[in-house]
Amino acid sequence: MAEIVAIKRSVPEGPVRSSLDKGVLRLVLANPPANALSIETMTALQAQLDGARDDKAVRVIVLAAQGNVFCAGHDLKEMTAHRGDADRGRAFFELTMSRCSALMQSIVRHPKPVIAEVDGLATAAGLQLVASCDLAIATDQAAFCTPGINIGLFCSTPMVALSRNVSRKQAMEMLLTGETIDATTARDFGLVNRVVPREYLNHIVGKYAQTIVSKSPSTLKIGKEAFYAQAEMGLVEAYDHAARVMVENMLASDAEEGIGAFLAKRQPEWKGE
Amino acid sequence: MAEIVAIKRSVPEGPVRSSLDKGVLRLVLANPPANALSIETMTALQAQLDGARDDKAVRVIVLAAQGNVFCAGHDLKEMTAHRGDADRGRAFFELTMSRCSALMQSIVRHPKPVIAEVDGLATAAGLQLVASCDLAIATDQAAFCTPGINIGLFCSTPMVALSRNVSRKQAMEMLLTGETIDATTARDFGLVNRVVPREYLNHIVGKYAQTIVSKSPSTLKIGKEAFYAQAEMGLVEAYDHAARVMVENMLASDAEEGIGAFLAKRQPEWKGE
Amino acid sequence: MAEIVAIKRSVPEGPVRSSLDKGVLRLVLANPPANALSIETMTALQAQLDGARDDKAVRVIVLAAQGNVFCAGHDLKEMTAHRGDADRGRAFFELTMSRCSALMQSIVRHPKPVIAEVDGLATAAGLQLVASCDLAIATDQAAFCTPGINIGLFCSTPMVALSRNVSRKQAMEMLLTGETIDATTARDFGLVNRVVPREYLNHIVGKYAQTIVSKSPSTLKIGKEAFYAQAEMGLVEAYDHAARVMVENMLASDAEEGIGAFLAKRQPEWKGE
Repeated sequence: MAEIVAIKRSVPEGPVRSSLDKGVLRLVLANPPANALSIETMTALQAQLDGARDDKAVRVIVLAAQGNVFCAGHDLKEMTAHRGDADRGRAFFELTMSRCSALMQSIVRHPKPVIAEVDGLATAAGLQLVASCDLAIATDQAAFCTPGINIGLFCSTPMVALSRNVSRKQAMEMLLTGETIDATTARDFGLVNRVVPREYLNHIVGKYAQTIVSKSPSTLKIGKEAFYAQAEMGLVEAYDHAARVMVENMLASDAEEGIGAFLAKRQPEWKGE
Repeated sequence: MAEIVAIKRSVPEGPVRSSLDKGVLRLVLANPPANALSIETMTALQAQLDGARDDKAVRVIVLAAQGNVFCAGHDLKEMTAHRGDADRGRAFFELTMSRCSALMQSIVRHPKPVIAEVDGLATAAGLQLVASCDLAIATDQAAFCTPGINIGLFCSTPMVALSRNVSRKQAMEMLLTGETIDATTARDFGLVNRVVPREYLNHIVGKYAQTIVSKSPSTLKIGKEAFYAQAEMGLVEAYDHAARVMVENMLASDAEEGIGAFLAKRQPEWKGE
Repeated sequence: MAEIVAIKRSVPEGPVRSSLDKGVLRLVLANPPANALSIETMTALQAQLDGARDDKAVRVIVLAAQGNVFCAGHDLKEMTAHRGDADRGRAFFELTMSRCSALMQSIVRHPKPVIAEVDGLATAAGLQLVASCDLAIATDQAAFCTPGINIGLFCSTPMVALSRNVSRKQAMEMLLTGETIDATTARDFGLVNRVVPREYLNHIVGKYAQTIVSKSPSTLKIGKEAFYAQAEMGLVEAYDHAARVMVENMLASDAEEGIGAFLAKRQPEWKGE
């Protein structure tokens, strides 16, 4: 039951708390009640993700949040304050969107798998965070929406991630009406992998994380990168790319070790870079 | 219960009836029993859609049909009659396909959301109409098929829309066997958003429509256009595009009004162009 | 119950057994327990598929397997044996991946519909076979996984096919954890069309196959080819392509016969090339 949290690299204050335990870097949005993606929060989250890229101690990243709102998206007060700028806010809005899009893409491009742990409402860019993760586990208290249309600001960047998780009519219903879907609907739509009771959330996310921690980090990196690359290609190009990846993967030390261990019916020991 | 139908722009006769009420342009295929997409019907429907593009009184379009068949697709008698032409019908078939493809794309490209209201059988290009709409609400009497394979004419243009709603194996089962799926299966496949009892169809579609009527028209236009544009892009390009759209959207008057109203906890008043 | 198997072109020995009955070419992986895709098996399967391309007696292909494992993917012993080669196996791994990718694409590009009949475990390239088929019918004893990550070899080529059947988070869960899904989950994910009790498997697959055998072969070829072609195109290009396909299809003899028969309420007689 007790979760042993390593002190190493833990950030006690600030909008994103981090802790590392058993190969799992846990990043917690810690600016409730909204956990809004202000420039400060995005910068902190980006720094954590960047720092984890080459950190061998980090094998999996879990993205969680404090409070009843996972993340309410952009910080509308911060953005509105810049309407008084000489350019009516254009430069600040460009900075916000640029930082946000870079953040979301850095999850997709991250060499380590990223799991969203959602126990509350994820809206707009908050939903986009969930949709950008490789996996998402939610409680039955989680809910999801893209409500930008209600305030005259269509969730155009969130829908880039949403529409790569969810079919067209389902995405359009969320985007055009702004209405909220519950966790079970989100799972049926493909936005989350599993819905669990709140009291089991840590346990289930931990189980997923440790399952992935047990795998070869270099193989995870190869595979995740290839997954999103081939997803954008036509079939011929995708097979050419994936076949080349497979050959290099076969020649890497972890595949030799893993296949050797499998044939010898023993546990593999990963050493790969 | 009573639906107040505005007289304005209503077309009392012809294969497509139209009426405008509370911002909702209702277009009804009115050539039962088949509601076939003859050149005449496609021309009438295209004219209605074109006319609604810049008509500020139209905020949402509902596409419905008279009778037990929503739409049976192309008019096979009309097409067959042209087999006697000097070119064996080639020019007429090209005209038919060109008009049909333009019609379907004009739904996708339309600045106003389009909702299919389906209470009957939608086959071939009739199914394509439903698949091309942004949203689709069906009764439990609705059914869907792509039966072209039964008559030696594969539903090749319908499948462009179908396969952008439904997964590959599901689409292929419909296309290769020609068999009919019920409304619940269509919802599970992602072809329709919701299945409702017949007696609630008008009520539920009206609720969806009025929800969308309450939004900023200019924001709906921005968002719908961006949705289908980014869907065809790779991730980097999609984020570049969507981020630019978001910045311009932020600088438009309706976002300023909407966000301001949200922060002030009041109702927004949309004025945007 | 009794299946009448034609002797013609049946291959009594070897890793792939074939039999032709009522237009259905049944290819059975016959190297249990693993039915691994060794070079020998891939070569045999490729030869069968190639031979069926222009064989008018073949209208549909069913891909099945002997034993409790549908197909366990690549032959790891065969691959490992080549680690002793001067190039550490590179040339052999390239050959394996090249043959495998060509095999999978030849199912997608095949002019005849291909149905996977799965009654057991399909893993890695075995799952890829199922995902590459146009349709898949499975028993409740079927199961599916991409376990390469467990042995340090990410299922990069299998995921090309998997991710074209299944949504992103579902595919990533399978790929990152290596865990097995049951047949019902596979159906919900879109990897198989239908799950049936084992005792009805032959009956149901036969029903699907004969449904397709009753269609125009030339129309099936036109449609299947267009389906996968348009799936890789943007909307404008897809409609341009599909509209051209429809016009040529209308002018082909089987559409004239099929539409004529439909309007005359008689059975069509396909003659098309």
